[in-house]
Amino acid sequence: MLQPEILAEFQTLLSVDRVYADAETLALYASDETPRYCLPDAVLFPASHDDVLAIVRLANRHRLALVARGAGSGNVGGALPVTGSLVVSFECMKRIVEFDPANRLIVVEPGVVTDDIDAIANSVGLMYAPDPGSGAYCRIGGNLAMNAAGPRCVKYGATRDHVLGLRAVTGAGQEIRVGGRTTKYATAYDLTRLLVGSEGTLALITEVTLKLIPAPERVATLRVCFSSNAAACAAVSRIMGNPEKNPAAQSVVPSALEFMDRRAIEAISEYGGEYGAAEGLPAGTQAILMVEADGAAADVPRQIAALEAALAGDGLLEIQSGFTAAEIANLWVARKSLSHAVKKIAPLKINEDVVVPVARLANLVNAIDALGKHHRVPIVSFGHAGNGNLHVNLMVHADDAEEMACARACRDALIEAVLGLGGSLSGEHGIGSEKRAYIERELDASTLALMQAVKALFDPQGLLNPGKKLPDA
Amino acid sequence: MLQPEILAEFQTLLSVDRVYADAETLALYASDETPRYCLPDAVLFPASHDDVLAIVRLANRHRLALVARGAGSGNVGGALPVTGSLVVSFECMKRIVEFDPANRLIVVEPGVVTDDIDAIANSVGLMYAPDPGSGAYCRIGGNLAMNAAGPRCVKYGATRDHVLGLRAVTGAGQEIRVGGRTTKYATAYDLTRLLVGSEGTLALITEVTLKLIPAPERVATLRVCFSSNAAACAAVSRIMGNPEKNPAAQSVVPSALEFMDRRAIEAISEYGGEYGAAEGLPAGTQAILMVEADGAAADVPRQIAALEAALAGDGLLEIQSGFTAAEIANLWVARKSLSHAVKKIAPLKINEDVVVPVARLANLVNAIDALGKHHRVPIVSFGHAGNGNLHVNLMVHADDAEEMACARACRDALIEAVLGLGGSLSGEHGIGSEKRAYIERELDASTLALMQAVKALFDPQGLLNPGKKLPDA
Repeated sequence: MLQPEILAEFQTLLSVDRVYADAETLALYASDETPRYCLPDAVLFPASHDDVLAIVRLANRHRLALVARGAGSGNVGGALPVTGSLVVSFECMKRIVEFDPANRLIVVEPGVVTDDIDAIANSVGLMYAPDPGSGAYCRIGGNLAMNAAGPRCVKYGATRDHVLGLRAVTGAGQEIRVGGRTTKYATAYDLTRLLVGSEGTLALITEVTLKLIPAPERVATLRVCFSSNAAACAAVSRIMGNPEKNPAAQSVVPSALEFMDRRAIEAISEYGGEYGAAEGLPAGTQAILMVEADGAAADVPRQIAALEAALAGDGLLEIQSGFTAAEIANLWVARKSLSHAVKKIAPLKINEDVVVPVARLANLVNAIDALGKHHRVPIVSFGHAGNGNLHVNLMVHADDAEEMACARACRDALIEAVLGLGGSLSGEHGIGSEKRAYIERELDASTLALMQAVKALFDPQGLLNPGKKLPDA
Repeated sequence: MLQPEILAEFQTLLSVDRVYADAETLALYASDETPRYCLPDAVLFPASHDDVLAIVRLANRHRLALVARGAGSGNVGGALPVTGSLVVSFECMKRIVEFDPANRLIVVEPGVVTDDIDAIANSVGLMYAPDPGSGAYCRIGGNLAMNAAGPRCVKYGATRDHVLGLRAVTGAGQEIRVGGRTTKYATAYDLTRLLVGSEGTLALITEVTLKLIPAPERVATLRVCFSSNAAACAAVSRIMGNPEKNPAAQSVVPSALEFMDRRAIEAISEYGGEYGAAEGLPAGTQAILMVEADGAAADVPRQIAALEAALAGDGLLEIQSGFTAAEIANLWVARKSLSHAVKKIAPLKINEDVVVPVARLANLVNAIDALGKHHRVPIVSFGHAGNGNLHVNLMVHADDAEEMACARACRDALIEAVLGLGGSLSGEHGIGSEKRAYIERELDASTLALMQAVKALFDPQGLLNPGKKLPDA
């Protein structure tokens, strides 16, 4: 528990209504989307860069751990308090500092909701491209922390690719401004992209300058059914690569290329009814791809035709296309009902977010199938196939010790398989507390040591989000 | 001069034919594209990652400075030796380690020529997008060091945006592997993009995994003449931004948007004859934009029409379009003759590479005009207008002390103007030795101190490219 005199210091610093240590507030900030719970000692609500600076400096004086938090919608424990820590909630820092359509950029505080940024951009024909599934409520600060992505990122890149500059306070309490407002930059060291994805372990970001791009005039969607995972993965390869080394590559980059495996489809059929069933799928459907194209109204039909040509191949059962908003929404029903449906298979999902080079997606999907059988764990896989990024959900009952042991062994083997395929632990969710035990399998010792030294440089007392991202040095 | 026994140690380490300290070789490696000259103590030609590792470790033992070098085609002194330094030339490390079209990536050593990478990609319908003007002879390692770009980068991004992973040796002699082989990545700290653009001051890169993208089927070009700089800059703004906050933004991103000012056009008319003149320009042409679109053959005409519509406005004199290779080459003649023509105005060009937010290009061009008049320095400006990135060339005679003093004052005022417009010192050439005196004007003290600490962490003895990029701590 925080000493009352330190609590009082924070209250003096920020004002009384920005510092909470009552049981109710602490309980509200004790968890994120992981099945874990840890009460913080206090919750702080800075209203400005200067507030954040003051918090970090006072925390350094008293050696208090600080856990930055946006909406708490992460699922790897990135925003989870640790014992004795203070949560720094960015919910109140939600100013649009500057909207500059002439330069296609927007400057915002970290507490702004991601979709709101896109909506502002949309008002003048622009867009903020990254579209995490939680976009309606997650905060841009959390997106920056995790290098969040989403379906559109297969065409447009993840959060990191859309950040021009940052203002931040390092763990040592230094104020920094990195990057800038230009679309090209070769001046100083790129600390901007280093801070993106660093999960609040190096600095607290207080302001971000984001790149906006022209919004597409039109979107069209294909729902594509296959008779096997292998057939769907082969189609992904034909769209995203040139496996045959043909003289011409398939050149349309889709604006979404999403995969659902057989288990996911079964889950929707069995449990998804109330949210919209997977009705009307052709018999024998074992895998579905959702494919989108966007761009100029005059060009989208050409893109769709090229994608349909690339999709054609062994095991293709059906392509349903949607061009109007209603048709598109209808095609996505099955996919959108998935997260609800999955929860009914078993109460707990152990959610992996692995990524492999896209041509190895078939190997990954095979490995998942074999591991699920071997360890007797139901696994539902879906995700951003165009990036080789799958959300692999091990469905378990937390109170069944045997099942949990199987799931842990299965998860372990999954990570080995992914690394064996040249892949990585996380495509877009980050590492947090939940996956850091695996970091040493992916990084060699000297690279990890250098990263730990970077951490020590930015945050010498180790106060920012301890126990997250990297193993302790 | 290097002690003979140390030279012998390097020869034992690398073999005799990879270590040179003869006068002729030293002279060959004493300069780059800046008008400076400094003999190194030796030139080393590593053939592998292990060679580089051995060099860095031995250099640490003897506290010897190492200056990494690709083709020596940089123009800010990035590859310029300093007194007592050893040049590490990557010319012999030019293996294509792996070409993987199925995953749209290529793994190469740093000595591979940039255009060769693009050519390999082209053989299967892919491309390596960054296209520096020196692409025919520069090495990818130098591009990584400087975060090089080129005309195409207005659409596709600079070098940093095309790097998936790196292998490197830090200044401390640690081997690291950062990033990976996937198009999405949220696992470890992003040291990949930190090393890109760090100008060989943090680590020596020994292998890079580059992202490839589908090559466009077709390119079309517009040469657009304007009656004033202001009119050309306004057209750039209409193409790249939404200055009027219209509900729909101009959505075609050109694959090149290059600018030439009146002085550049005059230089071509007066001196460019032998390389191809600026004939056939309409009377009163004061500024030219070169605009390209690329993409699917069926879509390029639509893009060109949209760009022509955006170009229409006050001061537009003429649009010439080219769709065939011959037509396109013909339109580029004036632009391509520029660097030769400029050299005839005065023997020395002080070449700035400033960048501003694109809607402020007009302010920058105005400021350049006023500064040239005020300081009586002929200035030729051209460059990548779509990114707000101009090459500003102050044309001087190095032996005219008064003229040089004027040019220095003018350069100083130019940098002030750029920073005042929210811009940055360098868009694509980097800082090297030539621009580091200005770094403190752009970065605040605490940000600079943090970057200097990053440098000290990677390279504790300060052996990698001393005197470059950042001012000394």
